[in-house]
Amino acid sequence: MSNVILVKQLYRNTSDFTNKQVKISGWIRTLRASNAFGFIEVNDGSFFKNVQVVFDSSKISNFKEVSKLPISSSISVVGTLVETPDSKQPFEIQAENIVVEGLSDADYPLQKKRHTFEYLRTIAHLRPRSNAFSAVFRVRSVAAYAIHKFFQEQGFVYTHTPIITGSDCEGAGEMFRLTTLDLNNIPKTEDGKVDFKEDFFGKETNLTVSGQLNAECYALAFRNVYTFGPTFRAENSNTARHAAEFWMIEPEIAFADLIDDMNLAEAMLKYVINYVMKECPEELQFFNQFIDKGLLDRLNHVVNSDFGRVTYTDAVKMLKDSGKKFDYEVEWGIDLQTEHERYLTEEIFKKPVFVTDYPKDIKAFYMRLNEDAKTVAAADCLVPGIGEIIGGSQREERLDVLKARMQELNLNEEDYWWYLELRKYGGTKHAGFGLGFERLIMYITGMSNIRDVIPFPRTTGSSEF
Amino acid sequence: MSNVILVKQLYRNTSDFTNKQVKISGWIRTLRASNAFGFIEVNDGSFFKNVQVVFDSSKISNFKEVSKLPISSSISVVGTLVETPDSKQPFEIQAENIVVEGLSDADYPLQKKRHTFEYLRTIAHLRPRSNAFSAVFRVRSVAAYAIHKFFQEQGFVYTHTPIITGSDCEGAGEMFRLTTLDLNNIPKTEDGKVDFKEDFFGKETNLTVSGQLNAECYALAFRNVYTFGPTFRAENSNTARHAAEFWMIEPEIAFADLIDDMNLAEAMLKYVINYVMKECPEELQFFNQFIDKGLLDRLNHVVNSDFGRVTYTDAVKMLKDSGKKFDYEVEWGIDLQTEHERYLTEEIFKKPVFVTDYPKDIKAFYMRLNEDAKTVAAADCLVPGIGEIIGGSQREERLDVLKARMQELNLNEEDYWWYLELRKYGGTKHAGFGLGFERLIMYITGMSNIRDVIPFPRTTGSSEF
Repeated sequence: MSNVILVKQLYRNTSDFTNKQVKISGWIRTLRASNAFGFIEVNDGSFFKNVQVVFDSSKISNFKEVSKLPISSSISVVGTLVETPDSKQPFEIQAENIVVEGLSDADYPLQKKRHTFEYLRTIAHLRPRSNAFSAVFRVRSVAAYAIHKFFQEQGFVYTHTPIITGSDCEGAGEMFRLTTLDLNNIPKTEDGKVDFKEDFFGKETNLTVSGQLNAECYALAFRNVYTFGPTFRAENSNTARHAAEFWMIEPEIAFADLIDDMNLAEAMLKYVINYVMKECPEELQFFNQFIDKGLLDRLNHVVNSDFGRVTYTDAVKMLKDSGKKFDYEVEWGIDLQTEHERYLTEEIFKKPVFVTDYPKDIKAFYMRLNEDAKTVAAADCLVPGIGEIIGGSQREERLDVLKARMQELNLNEEDYWWYLELRKYGGTKHAGFGLGFERLIMYITGMSNIRDVIPFPRTTGSSEF
Repeated sequence: MSNVILVKQLYRNTSDFTNKQVKISGWIRTLRASNAFGFIEVNDGSFFKNVQVVFDSSKISNFKEVSKLPISSSISVVGTLVETPDSKQPFEIQAENIVVEGLSDADYPLQKKRHTFEYLRTIAHLRPRSNAFSAVFRVRSVAAYAIHKFFQEQGFVYTHTPIITGSDCEGAGEMFRLTTLDLNNIPKTEDGKVDFKEDFFGKETNLTVSGQLNAECYALAFRNVYTFGPTFRAENSNTARHAAEFWMIEPEIAFADLIDDMNLAEAMLKYVINYVMKECPEELQFFNQFIDKGLLDRLNHVVNSDFGRVTYTDAVKMLKDSGKKFDYEVEWGIDLQTEHERYLTEEIFKKPVFVTDYPKDIKAFYMRLNEDAKTVAAADCLVPGIGEIIGGSQREERLDVLKARMQELNLNEEDYWWYLELRKYGGTKHAGFGLGFERLIMYITGMSNIRDVIPFPRTTGSSEF
């Protein structure tokens, strides 16, 4: 790395390097050359844009027929940076010496032409070298950092909640079981059942679907905490919005109610979008031009709007009154479908909106029961183009109310002894939410398939790479 | 949260609040009171230290016998901040109104007395409310952020490598199998084997032991990348240094060799330690006083030393020449044991040291073969008190050498087709390392059991909470 300049530095501080000798290294994205003279577009991975290198072939130390240098070969270039105010690119490097570091085979699968995203998924090890995926995964990284920055600057404690869990605490969908038992020779108990005492943890274990219940323990010690880690759903669904493995952010705040929770969610979304707009303007410009024409307008609108807030009951009324024909009819008590959510946020509010106070029967047991005894203090954030992006709630802190609700749902108190103890030993009002990280990235980039915002996606039947 | 001041703000900016009315909320850590008058130490989770609240009992709105207010109850306090330059604490709050938010039961398991760490593990949901664990888990959060900050400030791309994997790429120890098959009724193929085609991914899958091979794909697109995520080992070992689930940081850098790799590792460790020393002085003071007397000296020494560097061959010679009797005898070719590692770093170098160029037979297939054809370009970083904290290497970028090595080890090329293609399409020299995050936290805090630096640890037979 020594002495080598990153291309990002050349772009961000061009004048520091003008007419000076620089050394860069990177991969050939395009090459136009006669045998005497040519242009190479080099990308070094540090920046979305390429650098144009101008050369005559005598400058290449260790390769003869320059015009046959395959794209994706890695090279090092020493040359002079010259500003080119009349060209498309702001500067170029006039090569004095080019060394081929690693020659690419000519059958490189990512040739310079339009490829479908479906095809690129089959070469997930190479696709980050394409423009679109270089942009997606740089934005993903920057957005992840923005989330940490947002919470850490306010003193939130980042808490690593467990991935391996002995309890299906939420009953949230199918789980992956974990085992070290020999599946060809499963130990059985006397009554013929699987003997989990022989398994690694001495009991059944699964991959987590949410770190929330564990995060609550930490919120009641540190006041403000957040998780950011992988979560899993073994749902056999093959949609553009579901993956078996995805990352989730789950803040949890004590001495806080549903209003505080929504304020936090709104501030976080705006912070992350602002941060990505500031750090990745080239990438967002690319998405706006090639992936989703309205993207920049939409993002700008979001950071400058106050999010809407409406109760579920009022939202249902609005949907019914709209006259719009939905595939799935709207009635008080139903779980809102994506078509309803999108209509609310895209057509009625025309901006992100929190829907609050859902019927208790369609929400999880830990959500705080409202005075009406019919609804709970939940708040889902819906955004245009996606639908639900955040699901949050105030948590039930009243031990008796929580226990009664668990009984209604036939949940076993013993499985939740530690969760219940949080209410016994200095419980206080608290709230939190979950943000699906991939949904956020889809929202910020305009990418429409979750497989295209995860480096190596895991979905039904697919665990390649 | 509105209007409430965090205790951290009171400590960091005391003069802004002197003689003013403030509102805080938090949990009672200690209480000394007659029925008329008393002192409460309140901790709100935002800061390691408590705030002393002075009150007379008429100020408590909703609780009668103040002297019986159980510790761990949550309260809100409105009062005036008064500086107390002659006392142990720099200020106190003279209460005007105290409201009990959540009353704790009197049998609170974390009473004010010395508890063993073993006992506290049985109440992992409450232990972050104790001094030691409040300090450990705040340091863990701050250190995690420091790692992100270090890499992001240099433009590294944070890459979420997959947790679920179809390949045991490193052969690094036992893995957890993942399945959605019904273990009581496993589908079999015609020849009586488990029919994994029926499983969720249509094949055998495991939990990852390392994201490195995937990270290499991204380094060859973005140049500098890092992972930071959970990894898993189903090793049936019951030591103070091993957990079944732990977090790992794996940077991977292109156009870089082993020297660059060591420089990066050393800079990262120093950055993280400096950052924690700056952000968490109270916590480190506590560890230095109660957990590990030499801690601060050691950390200061580390950030101000140039790490040692020695080849494996020379290190073996030094160990043999030392005259020290080891349980496990030293010979060229052995894998260094913790006793050897600690002797090297603690007695011979008296500072962190990189041991480089290990025999190829004790290292992984992907490490770059040296000229001598006997050793590989590996570098492990050993630190006093711990032993190995980082394992790194330059990766084999020469396709023919890599393939030959895989053949020696009977690795199936087809399983690694994409990994091999990285060498075919513009491969370049590159390197990386893995840092066990828990080992780092043990090193920074002086805590000696890995179970005490993970919020809810998973070890053999233990997946509680």
